[in-house]
Parts: sequence; structure tokens; C-alpha cells
Amino acid sequence: MASTPQQPSNGFREERDTFGPIQVPADKLWGAQTQRSLQNFEIGGERERMPEPIIRAFGVLKKCAAKVNMEYGLDPAIGKAIMQAAQEVADGMLNEHFPLVIWQTGSGTQSNMNANEVIANRAAEILGHKRGEKYVHPNDHVNRSQSSNDTFPTVMHIASAMEINSRLLPNLKTLYATVHTKSIEFKDIVKIGRTHTQDATPLTLGQEFSGYSTQLQYGIDRVTCTLPRMYQLAQGGTAVGTGLNTKKGFDAKIAQAVAEETRLPFVTAENKFEALAAHDAFVECSGALNTIATSLMKIANDIRFLGSGPRCGLGELTLPENEPGSSIMPGKVNPTQCEALTMVCAQSVRLLGDASASFEKNCVKGIQANKERISKLLHESLMLVTSLNPKIGYDNAAALAKLAHKEGLTLKEAALKLAVLTGDEFDQLVVPEKMIGPSD
Amino acid sequence: MASTPQQPSNGFREERDTFGPIQVPADKLWGAQTQRSLQNFEIGGERERMPEPIIRAFGVLKKCAAKVNMEYGLDPAIGKAIMQAAQEVADGMLNEHFPLVIWQTGSGTQSNMNANEVIANRAAEILGHKRGEKYVHPNDHVNRSQSSNDTFPTVMHIASAMEINSRLLPNLKTLYATVHTKSIEFKDIVKIGRTHTQDATPLTLGQEFSGYSTQLQYGIDRVTCTLPRMYQLAQGGTAVGTGLNTKKGFDAKIAQAVAEETRLPFVTAENKFEALAAHDAFVECSGALNTIATSLMKIANDIRFLGSGPRCGLGELTLPENEPGSSIMPGKVNPTQCEALTMVCAQSVRLLGDASASFEKNCVKGIQANKERISKLLHESLMLVTSLNPKIGYDNAAALAKLAHKEGLTLKEAALKLAVLTGDEFDQLVVPEKMIGPSD
Amino acid sequence: MASTPQQPSNGFREERDTFGPIQVPADKLWGAQTQRSLQNFEIGGERERMPEPIIRAFGVLKKCAAKVNMEYGLDPAIGKAIMQAAQEVADGMLNEHFPLVIWQTGSGTQSNMNANEVIANRAAEILGHKRGEKYVHPNDHVNRSQSSNDTFPTVMHIASAMEINSRLLPNLKTLYATVHTKSIEFKDIVKIGRTHTQDATPLTLGQEFSGYSTQLQYGIDRVTCTLPRMYQLAQGGTAVGTGLNTKKGFDAKIAQAVAEETRLPFVTAENKFEALAAHDAFVECSGALNTIATSLMKIANDIRFLGSGPRCGLGELTLPENEPGSSIMPGKVNPTQCEALTMVCAQSVRLLGDASASFEKNCVKGIQANKERISKLLHESLMLVTSLNPKIGYDNAAALAKLAHKEGLTLKEAALKLAVLTGDEFDQLVVPEKMIGPSD
Amino acid sequence: MASTPQQPSNGFREERDTFGPIQVPADKLWGAQTQRSLQNFEIGGERERMPEPIIRAFGVLKKCAAKVNMEYGLDPAIGKAIMQAAQEVADGMLNEHFPLVIWQTGSGTQSNMNANEVIANRAAEILGHKRGEKYVHPNDHVNRSQSSNDTFPTVMHIASAMEINSRLLPNLKTLYATVHTKSIEFKDIVKIGRTHTQDATPLTLGQEFSGYSTQLQYGIDRVTCTLPRMYQLAQGGTAVGTGLNTKKGFDAKIAQAVAEETRLPFVTAENKFEALAAHDAFVECSGALNTIATSLMKIANDIRFLGSGPRCGLGELTLPENEPGSSIMPGKVNPTQCEALTMVCAQSVRLLGDASASFEKNCVKGIQANKERISKLLHESLMLVTSLNPKIGYDNAAALAKLAHKEGLTLKEAALKLAVLTGDEFDQLVVPEKMIGPSD
Repeated sequence: MASTPQQPSNGFREERDTFGPIQVPADKLWGAQTQRSLQNFEIGGERERMPEPIIRAFGVLKKCAAKVNMEYGLDPAIGKAIMQAAQEVADGMLNEHFPLVIWQTGSGTQSNMNANEVIANRAAEILGHKRGEKYVHPNDHVNRSQSSNDTFPTVMHIASAMEINSRLLPNLKTLYATVHTKSIEFKDIVKIGRTHTQDATPLTLGQEFSGYSTQLQYGIDRVTCTLPRMYQLAQGGTAVGTGLNTKKGFDAKIAQAVAEETRLPFVTAENKFEALAAHDAFVECSGALNTIATSLMKIANDIRFLGSGPRCGLGELTLPENEPGSSIMPGKVNPTQCEALTMVCAQSVRLLGDASASFEKNCVKGIQANKERISKLLHESLMLVTSLNPKIGYDNAAALAKLAHKEGLTLKEAALKLAVLTGDEFDQLVVPEKMIGPSD
Repeated sequence: MASTPQQPSNGFREERDTFGPIQVPADKLWGAQTQRSLQNFEIGGERERMPEPIIRAFGVLKKCAAKVNMEYGLDPAIGKAIMQAAQEVADGMLNEHFPLVIWQTGSGTQSNMNANEVIANRAAEILGHKRGEKYVHPNDHVNRSQSSNDTFPTVMHIASAMEINSRLLPNLKTLYATVHTKSIEFKDIVKIGRTHTQDATPLTLGQEFSGYSTQLQYGIDRVTCTLPRMYQLAQGGTAVGTGLNTKKGFDAKIAQAVAEETRLPFVTAENKFEALAAHDAFVECSGALNTIATSLMKIANDIRFLGSGPRCGLGELTLPENEPGSSIMPGKVNPTQCEALTMVCAQSVRLLGDASASFEKNCVKGIQANKERISKLLHESLMLVTSLNPKIGYDNAAALAKLAHKEGLTLKEAALKLAVLTGDEFDQLVVPEKMIGPSD
Repeated sequence: MASTPQQPSNGFREERDTFGPIQVPADKLWGAQTQRSLQNFEIGGERERMPEPIIRAFGVLKKCAAKVNMEYGLDPAIGKAIMQAAQEVADGMLNEHFPLVIWQTGSGTQSNMNANEVIANRAAEILGHKRGEKYVHPNDHVNRSQSSNDTFPTVMHIASAMEINSRLLPNLKTLYATVHTKSIEFKDIVKIGRTHTQDATPLTLGQEFSGYSTQLQYGIDRVTCTLPRMYQLAQGGTAVGTGLNTKKGFDAKIAQAVAEETRLPFVTAENKFEALAAHDAFVECSGALNTIATSLMKIANDIRFLGSGPRCGLGELTLPENEPGSSIMPGKVNPTQCEALTMVCAQSVRLLGDASASFEKNCVKGIQANKERISKLLHESLMLVTSLNPKIGYDNAAALAKLAHKEGLTLKEAALKLAVLTGDEFDQLVVPEKMIGPSD
Repeated sequence: MASTPQQPSNGFREERDTFGPIQVPADKLWGAQTQRSLQNFEIGGERERMPEPIIRAFGVLKKCAAKVNMEYGLDPAIGKAIMQAAQEVADGMLNEHFPLVIWQTGSGTQSNMNANEVIANRAAEILGHKRGEKYVHPNDHVNRSQSSNDTFPTVMHIASAMEINSRLLPNLKTLYATVHTKSIEFKDIVKIGRTHTQDATPLTLGQEFSGYSTQLQYGIDRVTCTLPRMYQLAQGGTAVGTGLNTKKGFDAKIAQAVAEETRLPFVTAENKFEALAAHDAFVECSGALNTIATSLMKIANDIRFLGSGPRCGLGELTLPENEPGSSIMPGKVNPTQCEALTMVCAQSVRLLGDASASFEKNCVKGIQANKERISKLLHESLMLVTSLNPKIGYDNAAALAKLAHKEGLTLKEAALKLAVLTGDEFDQLVVPEKMIGPSD
């Protein structure tokens, strides 16, 4: 190998495409089409570059394409060099040679060509040739039997399936486990329930957390349900779905190769016209991720309200104190993990995995119940009156609660004043600990 | 006048258009094209019909068109009958003759023809002719010098401007006035502030409400700012903006007529190609309405949290009790006006006026401050420590607050324990009433 | 039965709830709480009333509740009268007695009480008692063992599952069948492909339609996948999920009764806290419906562009002529079914079933291929050059296409001029009919 | 100056805050609170860091705060060092010392502290002291008279107003000028109009482009209209809007200082409670940007359809050829600037300025009219029949157009066949060049 990709810049070299010659930085592996895109789309800058998971997926795909193309007659020396270069892309070693922003052509042609050009130049180097000479040709060799119109949907599917399996699902499962553990830890703490932000009948704190853990469990199911359609690859459809310029069987073989490479159950798409022209699998998956975001939004909001205070809010939960909460109010601590999670939920599904992990580690794991506060609030609540319905009827019970509220009485005092129950009857019927489930 | 529009059904009559004859209910004024649309678009049913403000605006427009067309040669007998029939549409008297759903052609052609057909048949009746005979022709007379492509944008502008001026702005102004009155009523009630749902430094309840009233005042400004572009009418552009089949000056005259009819400052659009092909004025206005929705969402959410309880929530505000809040929990009362308002804000700008009025009448007007609760929470707060920053520095103040929180002390007890201040110094520095503004 | 619900109005009667007496129209079955809601929420008017499927689902649920409550001790005479009255609600016979708008309390308490009050008054009448006397009590009898907080999520699930099964899925299946039939009808029509709105390599019109039919098939799968969680009913959780004021087993029995009544596989929810406090099942289902909307949007847009013209557009498809397309341009016909469908897709999932049916009946079924136009466009396309890639390489093929474009030549003329192929070679390689699949 | 901020890493140093000591990379200027945030919020990585315009705005603000604080007693030596350090932040020289992601606390406290810590350490170095020793204190000196709750809204306003004025408006104005120039260049090219994708009456290509230029002109007006509320600064409200720990007049002085520093007309907000607790100014501005996005979406879509082809589409416009359009189809060129612009419009308002510039430079400036194609399509259109309405009535004109369509005739041939006009009459009435405006 004559040179490494990371060589320092020493000016420019000439690259060519069907539009003619163009100057490219000498220390970069990309070619003419990438350079044209760089100049034509000065939109958004570095942060808008094609995401790394897409670039890595291009490495996976181009490696597999070379492998299958060798079965169909691609020169093995060139094919092996392409595989080696593509592996470097898959490993993230050549990220700096992918400078294009996502705001380019709708088909991703320029990024497909970026991958073709970088891999062609790198493979040529591996074989002892110079960059720009096209000893390995970006279109005729690296892109052989392929079109942007099937490669780009394919790398989108590969990248999404890998991110979901390696980042999102493991983090959601950890969060689920911690919430489930909390629901058991809190199973005997009876507290006041709330509906409409108003006091309601009691339940246990564990029951509340069991609702959250069920939401998370269903969320994991939901995203998993959408994966079968994500595992269908468009590769082999080429330009418009017909598979022009491929050989029969190419589509199934390349899906098989990608499946082996990624250890995920990819298959070739049943209908290539749908696979190229629609991206419904992402809309479907986005719907599932949105449901998870909705669940996490509810959980985070509940937790921050239950943890509001410390003295002038609900104060039922004590959240971990992670950092100072104010630059002016000394000693203030805020529910910042809840805030970060709700922001992620409102904004972007890409970050749900990271945010779930952060929330689990820095918040849920450390939540403590403030038993004293919980008990105080529970016994003050007027909604304990609900357990009297079967005995004295809704209308009498309502009159009793209204009297207590108006005159600041306890429920028992009000019951005695209205003479609808004896004290003993009241004590027997109004037992918060018996109000957290159906009666026998 | 030989017959009234409300005559009972007695079978069907034949109407014709360029597609040929078709049967129409005899007691309805519409014609062949309306009937075809009814049969071709069975989508959504009655609730999806063209909104009444659009139908009334068609009445206004067709009346004005007949008036101007008479200046350009339309037979005055026919013109006057059209004006009379159109006035009936503008008055909402012929609503039942507008059966079409909004899910039809993108241009609204079928609703324009619905208006043309109803007015033509009604005008013919006024002149002693029968429905369906086209003595008054829907295209050649009622729609003269017009196309769906300029009439429909025009009625959208007329309807929106009228709704905003007659329903939204007056209701917002009433709500603003009541919130402003509350901000004055509550100006001396010092309470604990909250940020991130956590206790913060004090302010007055009146200051809090002054933030809401400023939001409402700006909201009124915002929607008002977008009206100049809403007052531009596309009428006169006909099919593609060129004004084909109109006479010079028609566009300005009809805008003038609509302005007189509605007493709103409508003008003819500067550029008819923009006015026909884009509906940016609605996107802009929707942005302003969305800002108002965002403001009302914040106000309603604040009020319901401040009113949460009555015993186990924040409980600082006492909201009007309007209706029973639970079918199972006797005596429960919920912040339902806040809930309805937040639902409207999330869903639809059309209802903002109604919901503002309901919120003003059934909630804001009756809000009471729970002074006892407010004072109790205020004096318990640790964030009063902030006023010590200038004296003892942020780090010392934080240590003091943390000690108080950890050991359940008052701030003063903690200050004395840490020996950073004397009791007198503390009493002089920590005065909530002095913490609600800059110092001199 | 002493009186029918449809008796003419003869003034008002007094009804009472825990807030006291209130006047109600004598000819209406609703009671005090419904009346209060009417007065407190004047938002949006008639079109904003609770949708009929929700009201019917309340009928189903209240009937089943009475049935199960009789097993747990409800007086059978009262229970049977409730069942009969509830059946009338389920059959849509009492719709006019449900006047409330959706913009009310977030829990739907007022609509649950509306159902309780109407059924209680109607059941009392059936038993020979007067309205308003509470011989059958809305809370203690009709709402027995229930809370708004479990009934409302339950009727939302019942109504949604019934609408999906009775309206959406059958209509989607019919549309799928027609599109599939078209894909077979058009299987031999080779046409120019297009990507980025630009000419590309050929495919058959049947292949294009097969992409659409696959999208529809997957859409049916997608919404079906979400139903298991829609079939979980919250009923039995009462106010906060604990099942307070129910007996053990009530939840499973009532889900069983609803399943029998609707012939849909409803079950009781695994976790009532999740079932009450979250509505994730709707978010998930909405994600699937959104995917279908996205698919239909693409299909409708494709069809209208392929049908654009008749003389100055693409003109490949001839769409059914359903109605006149312009009030000013005589003889104009527009792709209005495509327009209505795209509007529905952008706006609302509720209407997808109706719009699919309309689109199938009034558009897809009648689509004709314009073979002459298709063939003319096909043979003019420069993108047939793609089949030369394997023979002469991408760079030569590009030079050839560019020459043809620049000088207005056919591809063959350009090939001969560049001397990269003989005429015979060209004729052998560039055969559109061979370009619609992989080679052997 | 003892050391530069860019010194190489040599391990860690200890920093402290109210939570205690923590290790910080020795070569970074940030302190303890920044370090905690880094560890607590591992969400999204580098691309999710606080945007550079916000960081620069913090530099502006902290410089101005030091300047005003010196008037109120801040030690001038410390104040001047803070001003110098803050200027380095404003100039983008210390960007690498701002590592925090946006997914942190909702108030931005951690980024405010990041600014305070970096500026404090840098100012201390300027004065010859070591990092971490708090010779200049981040809270007591740099953050003096400030809270995150007023600084963060303030820097959001500063950053937005600067981006809009320096990037968005200039680029929109350039695009407007080029589109306007095209509308003049194309003013004599009569072409077929289209509505619903179907052929309609003629207009000039210049008229079409004048619609676009009006949209752009209004867009510039729209965003400009929202700026007065963006120029209102929250600074001086401190923690909850009361201005606790500031001196009277501080708010107006700092707004004045920011205005001088940025040369933009910033003022202090009328109501600090609104300015802190609501961010309606951004919602309003976003509504205006959304309107511009809607306008650009329409313009870009029109241009790509008018440029579709080159042989099998509409082909009326010839778009600049910027780069190869396919990795498989040689010679293909795509409307990629239109695609990039529509993607930006759908996704993000942040990029509208960049995308407008790219679209202007790489597309609009180079658009050519394909006059031959335009003329051919124009004269084939059936919608020229519309000019016959005033002479023969809508119904006769429709019959004529339908005959021509059905039998493939020209309009004139059909007119003669139907004997509704002589040939001379037809030639006099149907003149496309006279159909592009009202008649005299």
C-alpha cells in the first residue's frame, strides 16, 4: 500500500466525470461528482453531513455487492480490493472522505457516488495505482449492477435496522427493567391518585409505575412489529425497479450477503417497484417510534410533577440531584433528566435511545418515594369518599364531600354532621389500603 | 314570487350540464353539477360539508359580481334578481341547498357551481321562471367574468376576514380585559415563583397574570398584522390570473363592492398570479393563530396547575365550580375549561374564538386567589435564599439552602447554624415583599 | 311504554344533580349534567358534537355493563330496562339526545354522564316512570361499577375497532383488488420510466401498478398489526385503574360481553393503569393510518401526473371523466378524485375509508392506458442508453446520450456518429422490451 | 497573558461547584457545572451541540453585562477582563470550550454556566490567575445581575435576529431579484396555462414568474413584520421576571448595550414575565418562516415540473445542468436544486437562507425558456376555447371542445363542423396573445 488515506494535504489533483475535469483536494479520496456536489450545495455546513450510520451502511453494501459481483464475473483482484476498501468504510475509518450534506438530490445519487468514488480510489491504491486514474472505476466496478435508486433505500434500511437493534432496543429494555424494579420496590406505598390534576381515589405508587413499565414493554413490541418490512431490501431493482443491468438472482444473493455481514434477517423485497418508489417502511417505523416518544413524554412529565417542590409542590418523589439548577438561585435542583427526555420526545426519534439510557441512569434508578409526604396527602384527600358510593349512593356521598370541602372538615366529621353514617361505619368503609383494587 | 325554496319534496326534476341530463331532488335549488359532485364524492357525510362562512361569502361575492357586471352590460332585470338571490345566500337562508363536502376538487369548482346553480334557479324563480330552465344561466350570468380559480380564493379571504373580525378578535379582547383585571386584582398577593416545576423566588400573583395579559395583547397584534394580505382579493384573475373574459377595471370595482358590502378594507390583489396560485396569506395567518394557540395553551396549563388540589395539589387558585367532575367520585370538580381550551389549542384554530369566550366567561372571570395557601407556600420556600447572593455570595447561599433542605430547617435556622449571618441581618435581607423587583 | 323519545317539545322540566336543579328541554332525555355542559361549552356548534360511532359504542358498553352488573346483584327489572334503552343508543335511535361537543372535559365525563342520563331516563320510561325522577339512577344504576375514566377509553377502543373493521379495511381491500387487476391488465404495456420527474429506463405500466398494489397490501397488514392492542379494554379499572367499587372478575366479564356483542376479539387490558392513563394504542394505530395515507398520497399523485394533459401534459393515462372541471373553461375535465384523495390524506385519517371507496369507484376502475402516447414517449427517451453500460461502459454511454440530447439525434444516430457501436449491435442491445427485468 | 486557550491536553485539573469537586480536562476552559452536564447528558453526540450562533450571542451578552455591571459597581479590572474574554467568545475563538448538547435542562442553565465558567477562567488567565481558582467567579462576577431564565431567552433573541438579518434576508433578496429579472426576460413568451395539472388558458411565462417574485417579496415582508417582537430582550428579569438582584435601570441599559454591539434595534421587553415564561416571539417568527417555506416549495415544484423531460415530460424550461444525475443511467441530469430546496422547506427553517442562495446561484439564474416546446404545446391546447364563451356561451363552447378532444380535431375544425362560427370569426376570437389579460 503506497499511501494512507490520512496523508496531509499537498494541494489538488484532477478528477474527471462525464461533465469533464475538476480539481479535488489531493489528500481526499473522493472524486469529481462528490466535488461538484460540495460546490453546488453549500447548505447548512458540517452538522448537516450525511449521518455516519448511512456511511457505514454504504461500506457494508458495497462490500457485499463486490462479493456477489465476483460470482457474476467481476475480476477477483478488483473485487477483493473493493471489499477491503468497503470494509474500511464500514469500520468508520474513512468518515472524513464523506463531506456531503443531506440537502442534495432527492435520490442520494451524490452520496452513492461519493461511496463509489472513495472506494474506487482506495481500492486502486490497495492495488498500487494512483487516485483519479480509475483503474478501479466508480460506476463500472464499484457500482456494478447497482443504481442510486436501489442502493440508497437499501442503506437507509440497513442503517435504520442496525441503529434500532444496537442502540434503541437495548436502551429501552434497560429502562423497562429499572422501571419495573421500581414498581415492585414501591408496591406497598398507598398514595392519593389524581385525575385532571385534581385529587382522586388512592392507588399504590407501585401501581403507578406498573403503568409506565407496561407502556415501555408495549413500545418495545411496537417497534419490533415494524421490523419485518424494514428487513426488506430494494437492492437489485436498479434504476426503476426492473433490475435492468443485473443478472437473475442478484437481488436474493446480495440480501443474503448483507444478512450474513450484519447478522440481521434481511431479505430481498417482494416487489422492487414498491421498494424503490415508496419509503413506507420508514413512515411505519416512525409511527412506532412516535408512540414510544408519546409514552416517554407521559412518564417524564408524571415524574417531574410528582417530584415538584421540594416544599411548595407535590413532592411525592425525590429525584436524584445531578447538578446545580440555577445560576442565580443557590441550592436549586431541577428535574433536568425529565426535561431533556421530553425535549427529545417532542423533537426527534433519532435520540430516543440515548435519552432513554440517560434517563434510566441519571434519574429513574435513583428515584426515592417520599413516604411521609405521600401519606399526609393521602389522608387529607376528599376523594376517599368514593368508597361510600355502594353504601349511601352517589348523591349523598357528593353532599358529604362538598360539606367537608366547604367547611374544611375531615370526611368523617362531615359524615357525622350529616348523620349518614356512624363513626364505626365510616372507619370500616373508608380504608385507603382497601381502595386499591376491586372488592371480593 | 311563485314558490319558496323550502317547499316539500315531491320527487325529482331534470337538470342538464355539458355532461348531459341528471335527476335532482325537486325541492332543492341546486343543479346538475352539484348533483354530480354529490354522487362522486361520498366522503365523510354531513359534518364534512363546506363551512357556512364560505357559503355566506359566496352570497356576498355573487351579489357584488352581479352589481359590477351590470355596469359592464349584464341585463339589469337578471342582474337584480341575482343580487336578491345572492343576498338570501349571504343571509344563510339557503344553507340547505349547499350539500357538498369539502373533499371534492382542489379548486372548489363544484362549490362555486353550487352557488351559481342555486342563485341562478332562485333568481329565475324570482323572475317567474322555473328551476332547471336556465332562464338565468349559472355560467353565463351568475358566474359571468368569473372562474372558480378566482372566486374560491376570494370567498376564502372574505370568510376568513369576517370570522376573524366578528368572532375571534372580539372574544380575544374580552379575555384580555378580564385577565388584565385579574392582574390588577391580584397585584398585592406575593407568592412563591416556580421554574422547572420547582420552587423559585417570589413574585406577585398579579405579575404572573400580567404576563398572560401581555401574551394576549401581543396575540391580538399578531393576527391583526397579517390582515393586510388577507384583504387582498384574487377576483378578476379568472382562470389563470390573466383576467381573460373580464373587462379592464373589473377587478378593482368588485373589490370595492365587497369592501362596501362587508365594511372591511378589501382591495384587489396586486398580482393575480400569486393570488390564484398560492394561498400564502392563509399560511401566514395560520402562523399567527398558532402563536395565539401556544399562548392560550400556556395560560390554561398554568391556571390548572395553580388550581390543582383541592387538598393534595398546589391549590393556589380556586377555579369556578361549573359541573360535577366525576361519574364515580362524588363531589369532584375538575378544571374542565382549561382542558377544553388546551384541546382546542392543540387541534384547531377555527375554534379559538369560541373557546376564548367560554374560558373567559366560565373560568377566568371567577378565579379567586387562595391567599392563605399562597402565603404558607411562600414562607416555606428555600428559594428566598436568592436574596442573600449579593451579601454572602452564591456558594455560601447554596450551602445554606442545602443545609435547610437536608435537615428540614428554616432558612434562618440554617443561616444561624452556619454563622454566615446574624438573625437581624437575615430578617433585613430576606423579605419576600422586597424580592419582587430590582432594588433601588 | 308511555311515551316515545321523539315527542314534540312542550317546554322544560326540572332535572337535578349534585349542583342542584336545572331546566332541561322536556322533549329531550338528557339530564342535569348534560345540560350544564351544553351551557358551559358553547364551542364550535353542531359539527363539533361527539361522533356517532362513540355514541353507539356507549350503547354497546352500557348494555354489557347492565348485563354483567345483574350477575353481581343489580335489580333484574332495572337491568333489563337499561339493556333495552342502551340497545336503542347502540342502534343510533337516540342520537338527537347526545348534543355535547367534543371540546369539554378531557376525560369525557360529560359524555359518559350524557349516556348515563339518557339511558336512565329512557329505562325509567320503559318501566313506566317519568323522566327526571331517577327511578333508574344515572350514577348508581347505569354507571354502576364504572367511572368516566374507564368507560371513555373503552368506548374509544370499541368505536375505533368497529370503524376499522366495518369501513376502512373493506374499502382498502376493494381498492387493492382493483389496482391489482389494473396491474395485470397493463402488464404488457412497456413505457418510459421516470425518476426525479426526468426520463429514465423503461418498465411496464403493469409493473408500476404492482408497486401501488403492494403498498396497499402492506397498508392493510400494517393497520391489522396494531389491532391486538386496540382490542384491550380499560373497563374495570374505574377511577384510577385500581378497580375500586367493582367486584373481582368484573373486568374480564365485561370485555367478554362486549366481544360477544360486537363479534370482535376484545379482551380486558393486562394493566389497567396503562389502559386508563395512556392512549398509546391510538397513537400506534394513527401511525399505521398515516402510513396508508402516505401510500395513497403517492398513488394519487402519480396517477394525476400520468393523466395530465390531455394535450400538453404527460397524457399516458386517461382518467374517467366524472364532471365538468371548470366554471369558465368549457369542456375541461380535472383529476378530481386524485385531488380529493390527496386532501383527505393530508388532513385526516378518519376519512380514508370513504375516500378509498370513492377513488376506487370513480377513478381507478375506469383508468385506461393511452398506448399510443406511451409508445411515442418510450421510443423518444434517451435513457434507453442505459442498456449499453455493460457493453461500452458508463462514460461512453453518457457521451452518446449527451450528443443525442445536444444535437436532437436519436440514440442510434448518435451511436453511429461516435462509432462506438454498429447499427446491428445497437438494434440488438437497445430493445425496450428487454429492459424491464434482469438479464438471464 | 500566561497561557492561550488552545494549549495541548496535559491531563486534568480539579474544579468545584456547590456539588463538590470534579475532574475537568486541563486544556479546556470550562468548569464543574459544564463537566457535570457532559456526564449527565450523553445524548446525540457532537452534532447536537448548542449551535454556534447561540454561543456567539452569549459572548455578546456577557460582554454587555460586564460593561453595565461596572456602572453598578463591578470591579473595573475584573469587568474589563470579562469583556475581553467575552469578545473572544463572540468572535467564535473559544467554540471548542462549549461542548454541551442542546438536550439538557429546559432552561439552558448548563449552557449559561458553560459561558460563565469559560469566560471566568479565561478572564482570570488574562489577569494572571489560574483556571479553577475562581479569581473571577462564574456566578458572582460573570453572571452578576443575571439568571439563566433571562439570559437564555435573551441569547435566543440575539442569535435569531442576527441570523435573520445577516443570512436569511440577504439571500431571499438576491433570489427575489433574480426571479424578478426572469419575469421580465420571459414577459413576451405566451404559453399554455395549467390548472389541476390539466391544460388551461394561456398566460406568459413572465406572468408565471411574476407570481413567484410576488411570493418572495411578501415573504420578506412577512418575516420583517415579526422582528419588532424579536428585538425585545428579557434581560433584567432574572429568575422569575421580577428583576430580583438587579438594580433599577439595568434592563434598559443592557438592551441598549446589546443594540450598540450588534447594530440591531434591540429594546428591553415591556413585560418581563411574558418575556421569561413564554417564547411566543419564536412561534410567531416560525409561522412567517413557514410561510416562506411554503412559497419556496411551490416555486421549486413548479420549476421542476416545467423542466421535466427532456423528451418525455413537459420540457418547457431548461434547467442548468450541474452534475451527473445517475450512477447507472449515463447522461441523465436531474432538477437537484429544486429537490434540495423542497427538502429544506419540508424539514427546517434554519436552512432556508442557505438553500435560497444555492437555488438562486445554481438554478434560477440559469433557467432558459424552451420557446419551441412552449409554442407547440400552446397551440395544441383545447382551453383556447374559453375565449369563445362571451360569443357563443359556455354550453356551445364546451360541446366544441369535447368534439375536438373526442375526434382529435383542432378547435377550428371542430367549430366549423358544429357550424357555430365561421372560420374568420374563429381566427378573430381565438388569439392566444390576446388571452393573457382582460379585454378593453
